[in-house]
Amino acid sequence: MGRTSNAREKILTAAQELIEVRGYTGLGVAEICAAAGVPKGSFYYFFESKEALALAVIDEQGARQDREWRRILQDAAAPLDRLRELFAKTEADLREGQRTCGTITGCLFGNLTLELSNQTEPIRARLQQIFDAQVELVAGVVAEARARGEVTVADPREAARSVVAQLEGQVLFAKLYNSTGRLDALWANCLALLGAVPVAAGAGGGSAGTRARR
Amino acid sequence: MGRTSNAREKILTAAQELIEVRGYTGLGVAEICAAAGVPKGSFYYFFESKEALALAVIDEQGARQDREWRRILQDAAAPLDRLRELFAKTEADLREGQRTCGTITGCLFGNLTLELSNQTEPIRARLQQIFDAQVELVAGVVAEARARGEVTVADPREAARSVVAQLEGQVLFAKLYNSTGRLDALWANCLALLGAVPVAAGAGGGSAGTRARR
Repeated sequence: MGRTSNAREKILTAAQELIEVRGYTGLGVAEICAAAGVPKGSFYYFFESKEALALAVIDEQGARQDREWRRILQDAAAPLDRLRELFAKTEADLREGQRTCGTITGCLFGNLTLELSNQTEPIRARLQQIFDAQVELVAGVVAEARARGEVTVADPREAARSVVAQLEGQVLFAKLYNSTGRLDALWANCLALLGAVPVAAGAGGGSAGTRARR
Repeated sequence: MGRTSNAREKILTAAQELIEVRGYTGLGVAEICAAAGVPKGSFYYFFESKEALALAVIDEQGARQDREWRRILQDAAAPLDRLRELFAKTEADLREGQRTCGTITGCLFGNLTLELSNQTEPIRARLQQIFDAQVELVAGVVAEARARGEVTVADPREAARSVVAQLEGQVLFAKLYNSTGRLDALWANCLALLGAVPVAAGAGGGSAGTRARR
Protein backbone atom coordinates (compact mmCIF):
# COMPACT_ATOMS: atom_id res chain seq x y z
CA MET A 1 0.00 0.00 0.00
CA GLY A 2 2.93 2.32 0.64
CA ARG A 3 4.03 2.22 -2.99
CA THR A 4 0.44 2.47 -4.22
CA SER A 5 -0.23 5.65 -2.25
CA ASN A 6 3.05 6.98 -3.49
CA ALA A 7 1.98 6.59 -7.12
CA ARG A 8 -1.23 8.52 -6.42
CA GLU A 9 0.80 11.30 -4.81
CA LYS A 10 3.20 11.40 -7.76
CA ILE A 11 0.30 11.72 -10.21
CA LEU A 12 -1.31 14.48 -8.15
CA THR A 13 1.94 16.43 -7.82
CA ALA A 14 2.78 16.16 -11.52
CA ALA A 15 -0.79 17.08 -12.52
CA GLN A 16 -0.83 20.12 -10.28
CA GLU A 17 2.44 21.43 -11.70
CA LEU A 18 1.31 20.86 -15.27
CA ILE A 19 -2.14 22.41 -14.70
CA GLU A 20 -0.57 25.45 -13.01
CA VAL A 21 1.65 26.14 -15.99
CA ARG A 22 -0.42 24.98 -18.95
CA GLY A 23 -4.02 24.67 -17.82
CA TYR A 24 -6.24 21.60 -17.88
CA THR A 25 -7.58 21.28 -21.41
CA GLY A 26 -4.31 20.68 -23.23
CA LEU A 27 -3.07 17.95 -20.91
CA GLY A 28 -3.28 14.26 -21.70
CA VAL A 29 -3.28 11.39 -19.23
CA ALA A 30 -0.20 9.87 -20.89
CA GLU A 31 1.73 13.09 -20.45
CA ILE A 32 0.74 13.38 -16.79
CA CYS A 33 1.83 9.79 -16.13
CA ALA A 34 5.13 10.35 -17.93
CA ALA A 35 5.82 13.43 -15.80
CA ALA A 36 4.87 11.49 -12.68
CA GLY A 37 7.03 8.52 -13.67
CA VAL A 38 4.18 6.02 -13.24
CA PRO A 39 2.74 3.57 -15.78
CA LYS A 40 -0.41 4.79 -17.51
CA GLY A 41 -2.32 1.79 -16.24
CA SER A 42 -2.02 2.96 -12.66
CA PHE A 43 -3.73 6.25 -13.50
CA TYR A 44 -7.14 4.62 -13.88
CA TYR A 45 -6.60 2.63 -10.72
CA PHE A 46 -6.66 5.90 -8.77
CA PHE A 47 -8.75 8.22 -10.95
CA GLU A 48 -11.73 7.32 -13.07
CA SER A 49 -11.16 10.23 -15.45
CA LYS A 50 -9.03 13.29 -16.10
CA GLU A 51 -11.83 15.35 -14.55
CA ALA A 52 -11.65 13.25 -11.36
CA LEU A 53 -7.93 14.02 -11.23
CA ALA A 54 -8.59 17.75 -11.67
CA LEU A 55 -11.07 17.62 -8.78
CA ALA A 56 -8.48 15.86 -6.61
CA VAL A 57 -5.87 18.50 -7.51
CA ILE A 58 -8.34 21.27 -6.64
CA ASP A 59 -9.21 19.56 -3.35
CA GLU A 60 -5.59 19.12 -2.33
CA GLN A 61 -4.53 22.62 -3.30
CA GLY A 62 -7.74 23.99 -1.77
CA ALA A 63 -7.03 22.29 1.56
CA ARG A 64 -3.44 23.59 1.53
CA GLN A 65 -4.55 27.14 0.81
CA ASP A 66 -7.34 26.94 3.39
CA ARG A 67 -4.81 25.99 6.09
CA GLU A 68 -2.59 28.88 5.00
CA TRP A 69 -5.41 31.43 4.94
CA ARG A 70 -6.66 30.27 8.36
CA ARG A 71 -3.16 30.51 9.81
CA ILE A 72 -2.92 34.11 8.64
CA LEU A 73 -6.51 35.35 8.98
CA GLN A 74 -7.31 33.71 12.31
CA ASP A 75 -4.11 34.91 13.91
CA ALA A 76 -4.01 37.06 17.05
CA ALA A 77 -2.81 40.15 15.16
CA ALA A 78 -5.08 43.16 14.58
CA PRO A 79 -7.66 42.30 11.87
CA LEU A 80 -6.44 44.67 9.17
CA ASP A 81 -2.85 43.56 9.76
CA ARG A 82 -3.95 40.01 9.00
CA LEU A 83 -5.38 41.09 5.64
CA ARG A 84 -2.16 42.90 4.87
CA GLU A 85 -0.22 39.75 5.73
CA LEU A 86 -2.44 37.76 3.37
CA PHE A 87 -1.54 40.07 0.48
CA ALA A 88 2.15 39.91 1.39
CA LYS A 89 2.00 36.10 1.42
CA THR A 90 0.21 36.05 -1.95
CA GLU A 91 2.88 38.29 -3.45
CA ALA A 92 5.68 36.14 -1.95
CA ASP A 93 4.07 32.97 -3.37
CA LEU A 94 3.76 34.50 -6.85
CA ARG A 95 7.37 35.69 -6.71
CA GLU A 96 8.54 32.22 -5.68
CA GLY A 97 6.54 30.69 -8.54
CA GLN A 98 8.05 33.19 -10.95
CA ARG A 99 11.53 32.26 -9.74
CA THR A 100 10.97 28.53 -10.29
CA CYS A 101 8.79 28.64 -13.46
CA GLY A 102 10.32 31.73 -15.09
CA THR A 103 6.88 33.30 -15.37
CA ILE A 104 3.98 33.99 -13.03
CA THR A 105 1.34 31.27 -13.42
CA GLY A 106 -1.21 33.04 -11.24
CA CYS A 107 -3.91 31.54 -9.06
CA LEU A 108 -4.79 27.92 -9.84
CA PHE A 109 -8.43 28.50 -8.85
CA GLY A 110 -8.79 31.70 -10.86
CA ASN A 111 -7.17 30.03 -13.87
CA LEU A 112 -9.51 27.04 -13.70
CA THR A 113 -12.53 29.29 -13.13
CA LEU A 114 -11.97 31.10 -16.42
CA GLU A 115 -10.86 27.97 -18.27
CA LEU A 116 -13.52 25.53 -17.10
CA SER A 117 -16.28 26.81 -14.85
CA ASN A 118 -18.76 27.19 -17.71
CA GLN A 119 -17.91 23.75 -19.08
CA THR A 120 -18.02 21.28 -16.21
CA GLU A 121 -20.49 21.57 -13.37
CA PRO A 122 -18.52 19.43 -10.86
CA ILE A 123 -15.46 21.69 -11.25
CA ARG A 124 -17.63 24.81 -11.10
CA ALA A 125 -19.20 23.58 -7.84
CA ARG A 126 -15.82 22.78 -6.27
CA LEU A 127 -14.35 26.17 -7.23
CA GLN A 128 -17.44 27.91 -5.83
CA GLN A 129 -16.87 26.15 -2.50
CA ILE A 130 -13.26 27.32 -2.43
CA PHE A 131 -14.08 30.94 -3.17
CA ASP A 132 -17.06 30.83 -0.77
CA ALA A 133 -14.65 29.70 1.96
CA GLN A 134 -12.17 32.46 1.08
CA VAL A 135 -14.93 35.08 1.25
CA GLU A 136 -16.14 33.66 4.57
CA LEU A 137 -12.67 33.93 6.11
CA VAL A 138 -12.14 37.49 4.88
CA ALA A 139 -15.68 38.46 5.98
CA GLY A 140 -14.86 37.30 9.51
CA VAL A 141 -11.83 39.58 9.61
CA VAL A 142 -13.82 42.51 8.17
CA ALA A 143 -16.53 41.99 10.79
CA GLU A 144 -13.88 42.11 13.53
CA ALA A 145 -12.38 45.30 12.11
CA ARG A 146 -15.88 46.77 11.91
CA ALA A 147 -16.59 45.89 15.56
CA ARG A 148 -13.39 47.74 16.48
CA GLY A 149 -14.54 50.80 14.51
CA GLU A 150 -11.65 50.48 12.05
CA VAL A 151 -13.76 50.12 8.92
CA THR A 152 -17.14 51.59 8.02
CA VAL A 153 -18.36 49.14 5.39
CA ALA A 154 -22.00 48.11 5.89
CA ASP A 155 -21.92 44.46 4.80
CA PRO A 156 -18.77 42.47 5.69
CA ARG A 157 -19.57 39.57 3.35
CA GLU A 158 -20.24 41.82 0.36
CA ALA A 159 -17.05 43.74 1.17
CA ALA A 160 -15.12 40.48 1.43
CA ARG A 161 -16.35 39.47 -2.04
CA SER A 162 -15.01 42.74 -3.40
CA VAL A 163 -11.64 42.30 -1.67
CA VAL A 164 -11.30 38.76 -3.08
CA ALA A 165 -12.37 40.02 -6.54
CA GLN A 166 -9.73 42.75 -6.34
CA LEU A 167 -7.15 40.12 -5.36
CA GLU A 168 -8.08 37.85 -8.30
CA GLY A 169 -8.12 40.81 -10.69
CA GLN A 170 -4.67 42.01 -9.64
CA VAL A 171 -3.27 38.46 -9.77
CA LEU A 172 -4.62 38.26 -13.34
CA PHE A 173 -2.62 41.37 -14.20
CA ALA A 174 0.44 40.09 -12.33
CA LYS A 175 0.29 37.06 -14.65
CA LEU A 176 -0.33 39.14 -17.79
CA TYR A 177 2.56 41.54 -17.11
CA ASN A 178 4.65 38.85 -15.37
CA SER A 179 5.18 41.29 -12.52
CA THR A 180 4.35 41.02 -8.85
CA GLY A 181 4.42 44.83 -8.77
CA ARG A 182 0.77 44.69 -9.82
CA LEU A 183 -0.04 43.55 -6.27
CA ASP A 184 1.43 46.67 -4.66
CA ALA A 185 -1.95 48.42 -4.85
CA LEU A 186 -3.82 45.67 -2.98
CA TRP A 187 -3.41 47.06 0.50
CA ALA A 188 -4.50 50.62 -0.25
CA ASN A 189 -7.37 49.28 -2.38
CA CYS A 190 -8.48 46.97 0.40
CA LEU A 191 -8.60 49.88 2.84
CA ALA A 192 -10.60 51.92 0.32
CA LEU A 193 -13.05 49.07 -0.38
CA LEU A 194 -13.61 48.55 3.34
CA GLY A 195 -14.04 52.23 4.09
CA ALA A 196 -11.12 52.16 6.52
CA VAL A 197 -11.17 54.93 9.07
CA PRO A 198 -8.08 57.12 8.59
CA VAL A 199 -5.71 56.90 11.52
CA ALA A 200 -4.21 60.10 12.90
CA ALA A 201 -0.43 60.32 12.54
CA GLY A 202 1.30 58.98 15.61
CA ALA A 203 -1.88 57.35 16.93
CA GLY A 204 -1.04 54.54 19.31
CA GLY A 205 -0.82 50.83 18.58
CA GLY A 206 1.44 48.79 16.36
CA SER A 207 -1.05 48.15 13.61
CA ALA A 208 -2.69 51.54 13.44
CA GLY A 209 0.46 53.36 12.45
CA THR A 210 0.83 51.22 9.32
CA ARG A 211 -2.52 52.14 7.86
CA ALA A 212 -1.55 54.89 5.44
CA ARG A 213 -4.33 55.12 2.84
CA ARG A 214 -2.11 55.79 -0.18
CA MET B 1 -12.36 38.35 -53.73
CA GLY B 2 -15.83 38.85 -52.27
CA ARG B 3 -16.17 35.14 -51.51
CA THR B 4 -12.60 34.91 -50.26
CA SER B 5 -13.10 37.70 -47.70
CA ASN B 6 -16.33 36.07 -46.70
CA ALA B 7 -14.56 32.80 -45.82
CA ARG B 8 -12.07 34.67 -43.64
CA GLU B 9 -14.95 36.40 -41.85
CA LYS B 10 -16.73 33.09 -41.32
CA ILE B 11 -13.61 31.53 -39.80
CA LEU B 12 -13.09 34.52 -37.52
CA THR B 13 -16.70 34.54 -36.35
CA ALA B 14 -16.76 30.79 -35.69
CA ALA B 15 -13.41 30.90 -33.90
CA GLN B 16 -14.47 33.77 -31.68
CA GLU B 17 -17.65 31.99 -30.62
CA LEU B 18 -15.80 28.74 -29.93
CA ILE B 19 -12.97 30.46 -28.02
CA GLU B 20 -15.49 32.43 -25.93
CA VAL B 21 -17.25 29.26 -24.81
CA ARG B 22 -14.45 26.70 -24.68
CA GLY B 23 -11.15 28.53 -24.66
CA TYR B 24 -8.31 28.25 -27.14
CA THR B 25 -6.32 25.16 -26.19
CA GLY B 26 -8.98 22.53 -26.81
CA LEU B 27 -9.95 23.75 -30.28
CA GLY B 28 -8.74 22.17 -33.49
CA VAL B 29 -8.49 23.80 -36.89
CA ALA B 30 -10.78 21.14 -38.40
CA GLU B 31 -13.47 21.90 -35.83
CA ILE B 32 -13.25 25.63 -36.43
CA CYS B 33 -13.56 25.13 -40.20
CA ALA B 34 -16.53 22.79 -39.75
CA ALA B 35 -18.28 25.38 -37.57
CA ALA B 36 -17.48 28.09 -40.11
CA GLY B 37 -18.67 25.91 -43.01
CA VAL B 38 -15.45 26.38 -44.99
CA PRO B 39 -13.03 23.73 -46.31
CA LYS B 40 -10.01 23.14 -44.10
CA GLY B 41 -7.69 24.05 -46.95
CA SER B 42 -8.91 27.64 -46.94
CA PHE B 43 -7.88 28.06 -43.29
CA TYR B 44 -4.18 28.09 -44.11
CA TYR B 45 -4.79 30.45 -47.00
CA PHE B 46 -5.84 33.10 -44.47
CA PHE B 47 -3.99 32.11 -41.27
CA GLU B 48 -0.56 30.59 -41.00
CA SER B 49 -1.37 28.92 -37.69
CA LYS B 50 -4.00 28.56 -34.99
CA GLU B 51 -2.09 31.17 -33.00
CA ALA B 52 -2.33 33.62 -35.92
CA LEU B 53 -6.09 33.05 -35.90
CA ALA B 54 -6.26 33.71 -32.15
CA LEU B 55 -4.37 36.97 -32.65
CA ALA B 56 -6.82 37.98 -35.39
CA VAL B 57 -9.77 37.16 -33.11
CA ILE B 58 -8.20 39.23 -30.32
CA ASP B 59 -7.56 42.12 -32.72
CA GLU B 60 -11.11 42.13 -34.07
CA GLN B 61 -12.77 41.81 -30.67
CA GLY B 62 -10.29 44.34 -29.25
CA ALA B 63 -11.17 46.89 -31.95
CA ARG B 64 -14.89 46.34 -31.35
CA GLN B 65 -14.54 46.78 -27.60
CA ASP B 66 -12.28 49.80 -28.04
CA ARG B 67 -14.97 51.53 -30.14
CA GLU B 68 -17.56 50.69 -27.51
CA TRP B 69 -15.45 51.90 -24.58
CA ARG B 70 -14.59 55.13 -26.44
CA ARG B 71 -18.24 55.74 -27.25
CA ILE B 72 -19.11 55.46 -23.56
CA LEU B 73 -16.03 56.91 -21.86
CA GLN B 74 -15.48 59.84 -24.22
CA ASP B 75 -19.12 60.88 -24.10
CA ALA B 76 -20.27 64.35 -23.01
CA ALA B 77 -21.80 63.02 -19.74
CA ALA B 78 -20.23 63.74 -16.35
CA PRO B 79 -17.08 61.59 -15.94
CA LEU B 80 -18.33 59.34 -13.15
CA ASP B 81 -21.60 58.79 -14.98
CA ARG B 82 -19.59 57.46 -17.92
CA LEU B 83 -17.88 54.91 -15.69
CA ARG B 84 -21.24 53.86 -14.32
CA GLU B 85 -22.51 53.45 -17.89
CA LEU B 86 -19.49 51.26 -18.70
CA PHE B 87 -20.37 48.90 -15.85
CA ALA B 88 -24.04 48.84 -16.91
CA LYS B 89 -23.01 48.00 -20.48
CA THR B 90 -20.68 45.23 -19.25
CA GLU B 91 -23.49 43.73 -17.19
CA ALA B 92 -25.91 43.95 -20.13
CA ASP B 93 -23.40 42.24 -22.43
CA LEU B 94 -22.85 39.40 -19.94
CA ARG B 95 -26.60 38.98 -19.50
CA GLU B 96 -27.09 38.83 -23.27
CA GLY B 97 -24.30 36.23 -23.55
CA GLN B 98 -25.89 34.23 -20.75
CA ARG B 99 -29.23 34.32 -22.60
CA THR B 100 -27.74 33.02 -25.83
CA CYS B 101 -25.11 30.57 -24.45
CA GLY B 102 -27.00 29.43 -21.35
CA THR B 103 -24.03 30.35 -19.18
CA ILE B 104 -21.83 33.42 -18.69
CA THR B 105 -18.61 33.00 -20.67
CA GLY B 106 -16.95 36.07 -19.16
CA CYS B 107 -14.41 38.41 -20.72
CA LEU B 108 -12.58 36.99 -23.76
CA PHE B 109 -9.43 38.92 -22.85
CA GLY B 110 -9.48 37.90 -19.19
CA ASN B 111 -10.10 34.28 -20.19
CA LEU B 112 -7.19 34.25 -22.64
CA THR B 113 -4.93 36.05 -20.15
CA LEU B 114 -5.30 33.26 -17.61
CA GLU B 115 -5.30 30.49 -20.22
CA LEU B 116 -2.39 31.62 -22.37
CA SER B 117 -0.45 34.71 -21.34
CA ASN B 118 2.34 32.68 -19.71
CA GLN B 119 2.57 30.35 -22.70
CA THR B 120 2.74 32.49 -25.83
CA GLU B 121 4.52 35.82 -25.94
CA PRO B 122 2.70 37.20 -29.02
CA ILE B 123 -0.68 36.66 -27.33
CA ARG B 124 0.64 38.06 -24.05
CA ALA B 125 1.84 41.20 -25.87
CA ARG B 126 -1.48 41.69 -27.66
CA LEU B 127 -3.50 41.27 -24.46
CA GLN B 128 -1.21 43.73 -22.67
CA GLN B 129 -1.94 46.30 -25.40
CA ILE B 130 -5.67 45.80 -24.96
CA PHE B 131 -5.62 46.19 -21.18
CA ASP B 132 -3.17 49.11 -21.45
CA ALA B 133 -5.69 50.85 -23.72
CA GLN B 134 -8.55 50.11 -21.31
CA VAL B 135 -6.56 51.55 -18.41
CA GLU B 136 -5.65 54.62 -20.49
CA LEU B 137 -9.32 55.32 -21.28
CA VAL B 138 -10.43 54.89 -17.67
CA ALA B 139 -7.47 56.99 -16.44
CA GLY B 140 -8.62 59.85 -18.70
CA VAL B 141 -12.06 59.78 -17.10
CA VAL B 142 -10.60 59.60 -13.59
CA ALA B 143 -8.33 62.58 -14.35
CA GLU B 144 -11.38 64.57 -15.49
CA ALA B 145 -13.31 63.64 -12.34
CA ARG B 146 -10.28 64.64 -10.29
CA ALA B 147 -10.03 68.02 -12.02
CA ARG B 148 -13.70 68.59 -11.11
CA GLY B 149 -12.97 67.74 -7.48
CA GLU B 150 -15.21 64.68 -7.56
CA VAL B 151 -12.55 62.13 -6.64
CA THR B 152 -9.52 62.44 -4.41
CA VAL B 153 -7.31 59.66 -5.74
CA ALA B 154 -3.68 60.74 -6.21
CA ASP B 155 -2.71 58.79 -9.34
CA PRO B 156 -5.41 58.42 -12.04
CA ARG B 157 -3.54 55.69 -13.94
CA GLU B 158 -2.90 53.60 -10.85
CA ALA B 159 -6.54 54.06 -9.84
CA ALA B 160 -7.67 53.07 -13.33
CA ARG B 161 -5.64 49.85 -13.07
CA SER B 162 -7.45 49.05 -9.84
CA VAL B 163 -10.87 49.77 -11.35
CA VAL B 164 -10.12 47.51 -14.34
CA ALA B 165 -8.78 44.81 -11.97
CA GLN B 166 -11.97 45.05 -9.93
CA LEU B 167 -14.00 44.73 -13.13
CA GLU B 168 -12.05 41.63 -14.27
CA GLY B 169 -12.28 40.10 -10.79
CA GLN B 170 -16.05 40.57 -10.57
CA VAL B 171 -16.54 39.25 -14.13
CA LEU B 172 -14.54 36.17 -13.05
CA PHE B 173 -17.04 35.65 -10.23
CA ALA B 174 -20.00 36.37 -12.52
CA LYS B 175 -18.74 33.50 -14.66
CA LEU B 176 -18.07 31.18 -11.72
CA TYR B 177 -21.52 31.74 -10.16
CA ASN B 178 -23.19 32.23 -13.56
CA SER B 179 -24.79 35.38 -12.17
CA THR B 180 -24.59 38.96 -13.33
CA GLY B 181 -25.56 39.94 -9.78
CA ARG B 182 -21.84 39.78 -8.97
CA LEU B 183 -21.43 43.04 -10.90
CA ASP B 184 -23.86 44.97 -8.69
CA ALA B 185 -21.00 45.99 -6.39
CA LEU B 186 -18.90 47.53 -9.18
CA TRP B 187 -20.24 51.06 -8.96
CA ALA B 188 -19.89 51.46 -5.18
CA ASN B 189 -16.46 49.81 -5.32
CA CYS B 190 -15.34 52.12 -8.10
CA LEU B 191 -16.34 55.16 -6.03
CA ALA B 192 -14.48 53.74 -3.03
CA LEU B 193 -11.34 52.97 -5.09
CA LEU B 194 -11.35 56.47 -6.54
CA GLY B 195 -11.93 58.17 -3.21
CA ALA B 196 -15.13 59.77 -4.49
CA VAL B 197 -16.18 62.86 -2.61
CA PRO B 198 -19.57 62.22 -0.98
CA VAL B 199 -22.31 64.39 -2.45
CA ALA B 200 -24.73 66.15 -0.11
CA ALA B 201 -28.35 64.98 -0.47
CA GLY B 202 -30.21 67.15 -2.93
CA ALA B 203 -27.03 68.75 -4.28
CA GLY B 204 -27.59 70.11 -7.76
CA GLY B 205 -26.77 68.48 -11.07
CA GLY B 206 -28.05 65.37 -12.77
CA SER B 207 -25.01 63.23 -12.15
CA ALA B 208 -24.26 64.24 -8.60
CA GLY B 209 -27.57 63.02 -7.23
CA THR B 210 -26.85 59.48 -8.41
CA ARG B 211 -23.60 59.09 -6.48
CA ALA B 212 -24.76 57.24 -3.40
CA ARG B 213 -21.70 55.52 -1.94
CA ARG B 214 -23.35 52.26 -0.91
